[in-house]
Amino acid sequence: MPKINKILIANRGEIALRIMRTAKELGIQTVAIFSEADRNSPHVRFADEAVCIGPPPSNQSYLLGDKIIEICKNLHVDAIHPGYGFLSENATFCRKVIEAGLIFIGPSPESIELMGDKLTSKHTVAKYNIPMVPGTPDAVTDRAIAKEKSLEIGYPVLIKASAGGGGKGMRVVENEDDFDEQMDRAVSEAITSFGNGSVFIEKYITAPKHIEIQVLGDQHGNVVHLFERECSIQRRHQKVVEEAPSAVLTPEIREAMGRCAVDVAKACNYYGAGTVEFIVDEKLDFYFLEMNTRLQVEHPVTELITGIDLVKEMIRIAEGECISFKQEDIHIQGHAIEIRVCAEDPRNNFLPDVGTLNTYVRPEGNGVRVDDGFEEGMAIPIFYDPMIAKLITYGKNREEAIAKMIRAIDEFKISGIQTTLPFCKFVMQHEAFISGNFDTRFISLYYSPELLDELPDAEEELLAAALANFLIENKKNNPTVITNSPIVESSNWKVNRLTYR
Amino acid sequence: MPKINKILIANRGEIALRIMRTAKELGIQTVAIFSEADRNSPHVRFADEAVCIGPPPSNQSYLLGDKIIEICKNLHVDAIHPGYGFLSENATFCRKVIEAGLIFIGPSPESIELMGDKLTSKHTVAKYNIPMVPGTPDAVTDRAIAKEKSLEIGYPVLIKASAGGGGKGMRVVENEDDFDEQMDRAVSEAITSFGNGSVFIEKYITAPKHIEIQVLGDQHGNVVHLFERECSIQRRHQKVVEEAPSAVLTPEIREAMGRCAVDVAKACNYYGAGTVEFIVDEKLDFYFLEMNTRLQVEHPVTELITGIDLVKEMIRIAEGECISFKQEDIHIQGHAIEIRVCAEDPRNNFLPDVGTLNTYVRPEGNGVRVDDGFEEGMAIPIFYDPMIAKLITYGKNREEAIAKMIRAIDEFKISGIQTTLPFCKFVMQHEAFISGNFDTRFISLYYSPELLDELPDAEEELLAAALANFLIENKKNNPTVITNSPIVESSNWKVNRLTYR
Repeated sequence: MPKINKILIANRGEIALRIMRTAKELGIQTVAIFSEADRNSPHVRFADEAVCIGPPPSNQSYLLGDKIIEICKNLHVDAIHPGYGFLSENATFCRKVIEAGLIFIGPSPESIELMGDKLTSKHTVAKYNIPMVPGTPDAVTDRAIAKEKSLEIGYPVLIKASAGGGGKGMRVVENEDDFDEQMDRAVSEAITSFGNGSVFIEKYITAPKHIEIQVLGDQHGNVVHLFERECSIQRRHQKVVEEAPSAVLTPEIREAMGRCAVDVAKACNYYGAGTVEFIVDEKLDFYFLEMNTRLQVEHPVTELITGIDLVKEMIRIAEGECISFKQEDIHIQGHAIEIRVCAEDPRNNFLPDVGTLNTYVRPEGNGVRVDDGFEEGMAIPIFYDPMIAKLITYGKNREEAIAKMIRAIDEFKISGIQTTLPFCKFVMQHEAFISGNFDTRFISLYYSPELLDELPDAEEELLAAALANFLIENKKNNPTVITNSPIVESSNWKVNRLTYR
Repeated sequence: MPKINKILIANRGEIALRIMRTAKELGIQTVAIFSEADRNSPHVRFADEAVCIGPPPSNQSYLLGDKIIEICKNLHVDAIHPGYGFLSENATFCRKVIEAGLIFIGPSPESIELMGDKLTSKHTVAKYNIPMVPGTPDAVTDRAIAKEKSLEIGYPVLIKASAGGGGKGMRVVENEDDFDEQMDRAVSEAITSFGNGSVFIEKYITAPKHIEIQVLGDQHGNVVHLFERECSIQRRHQKVVEEAPSAVLTPEIREAMGRCAVDVAKACNYYGAGTVEFIVDEKLDFYFLEMNTRLQVEHPVTELITGIDLVKEMIRIAEGECISFKQEDIHIQGHAIEIRVCAEDPRNNFLPDVGTLNTYVRPEGNGVRVDDGFEEGMAIPIFYDPMIAKLITYGKNREEAIAKMIRAIDEFKISGIQTTLPFCKFVMQHEAFISGNFDTRFISLYYSPELLDELPDAEEELLAAALANFLIENKKNNPTVITNSPIVESSNWKVNRLTYR
């Protein structure tokens, strides 16, 4: 059984720190790699050793698989943890790592390949009777057959050009009466755009929820699931708020989805940590979307409700050990929510923002976890993902986790850059989110920038505090005054400091 | 049912922040009080309103109960949370708060009084058959009776002058043969010191463990316990490391102690959060010591293993609500350890240290909670308790909580002041602690300052990092060099930074 003594983390930022923390807890040495743009990043200082791998962008540094393997050999590294993104789902890299005699902390290259392609993955899981979005398996050209299939599937349906992409040749049909007209349009658009009029018919999910199941497999064929994560709040098809458990799943559906996810993992002989993504409709029918063969950004919510350190399990599994627990040993305890604090302007279509973290004060206290890779005074490099931090709260129940999240957002002081924090606070306070009755359309249905609080900028708050202090000093000589109304107030802030002597 | 809209926290530092965080999560306004020495403390800025109550020391500020009540009236405060220390166990203050029409977030003044005195408290709980350290209820003067009682109690016994104190007239008797000699000495010392030769005989607990039970009561007569905290690692009779659950209690003893603690609370009609302290001997027989009628410093470990926010329960109970759960609803989940990071020098008999927090970087990540009231650059005032922060870690089991604590201690960067961090790391790595086989004699049995690691000072680490950076820059022009040995090394630190380009 190979024993890992030194891990190279082929990643940057919060996930590099996250992995290093667990490695340290296991007594494993850590090697960081960093691009020239990340020279001053905490993940560089946190590691036992750190190697500059090249300049930004990533294809000249973090994506240089061969160079990373060479570094491992030179530094007597035993194993590589790829984190997420970058090389984490690159089967060729994974294979080269193994061929170099190193341990890849993740699945086999075969699993990555099988699940890396939508069609291959659906074919792979076919024998397990995994629910898919109902539709025609092959392209249809005959109108009568198409209409018949649509009735079978049930309206609304989606007509998709078989050669299509980018929404071209795609039509939603609400009911049978509209079928002919929409079919005509789809076919003519398909012919014009792709020179091919054949189409697929698929069930159209009106109010889709994105719910995924965390799975863990080991190299001895054991697979367990760690329940679901609800990730429907998305902007630009990217998750921004995640939680576990889902507010709407019944125990029966949870179990069915869990079993289904385990089957998907077994279908590709999966080991390591992986995520099986489902689309869930209003009736809570669920359909397999895809499997992500890596650790996910939102894994902390699962860690909080199960007490399982997923990175620790990944490392132990990579060493050849069995999963440290059985399915029946783990239960959902409490509720966890994660928000992604990104350098984006929620008042301006979530456009990425760049700049320097002039103020950066993390929230603290009971039930609050911050996973980040930045410090006050650092610049956010333009080359990478705009995520600054993940803020995760944990409570006895969902209500408590939401209350803690609002408190923690208020406590998180960031200035110098626009972030998704005000948007996330908006979500936490929105009735649809609070009720659990929401889906991936949340932003288009409910959000507009005018609805954001006039949030005080952290710099203005500091100014206000200094002013208040000055006023307190001044009032020292007037011992009977008690001021209960704001001392200073602007449209964005007010000073409520009081003196009493 | 009175509803609390605004709370004044009659305390400072970490516990003031701790209480305010929960208040904010409940949508309750907060008022801080602060002494002139605490003007720049985070708890002042964190509150919605803050009032300067006077200069240090505490008897001119934090202990001015009447002034605090006056502030409450002027600011339309509904309730006072006293935290721990200061006025928290002052029955007179508690009574005045209630007489002023305010809510005291804690027990009744009668409960405080009953439990505030050792003799009264033992008398109060007598009818509940609570185990006490075996001994003579009254003073003994007759030697034959004393000897008979000692045999009954079982050796070793302690002979204590009934008028004694401070260890005078106190003798440990190991066996019957030594009885006469030790009795002679005790009586003669007692006569010399106090003019009274009568003594008590009590069982001497050779290897005492300090284990306490957290209880919660409401105003409707419901009382539950939240399991135990093991607090045996102490310096100068003050706790420095606490954990939950205990590593040695059996489920049966845990349940018996829990029931016993509930009985103690019922005996004094207790409501709010309280702690029943026990002394536990090697055979795990337990004896009632006293009850603390307030929130304890070490309450977070209980919060982590039960998922219950104790401050939230206290506030709801003070509003007249029932406890939000039943005894059978709560179970121990995982393991939590707290260390007290105090401004004390563990290399110099734990003498308090004063100075400025030149570096103050908190540990972060999965399973780490820091409750504190300081920031980088702040001075530690000499007037108050030397505790800077509480560092709490949580893991699936005790081994994981210890590993996380060692990692978190390494990550906690404090310079400018000596702290208990290196001592706490020593504890975490000591075989007796790891095995769970330790008691209140831990420091006297195992600790001496020479055993502490030569820990690098945070300032030296920063210097090393800067130096490493300089060397990396220099090596940029020499692209083939890989350095695997330390670049720079001193007795206290080494620089392991590498370059590879």
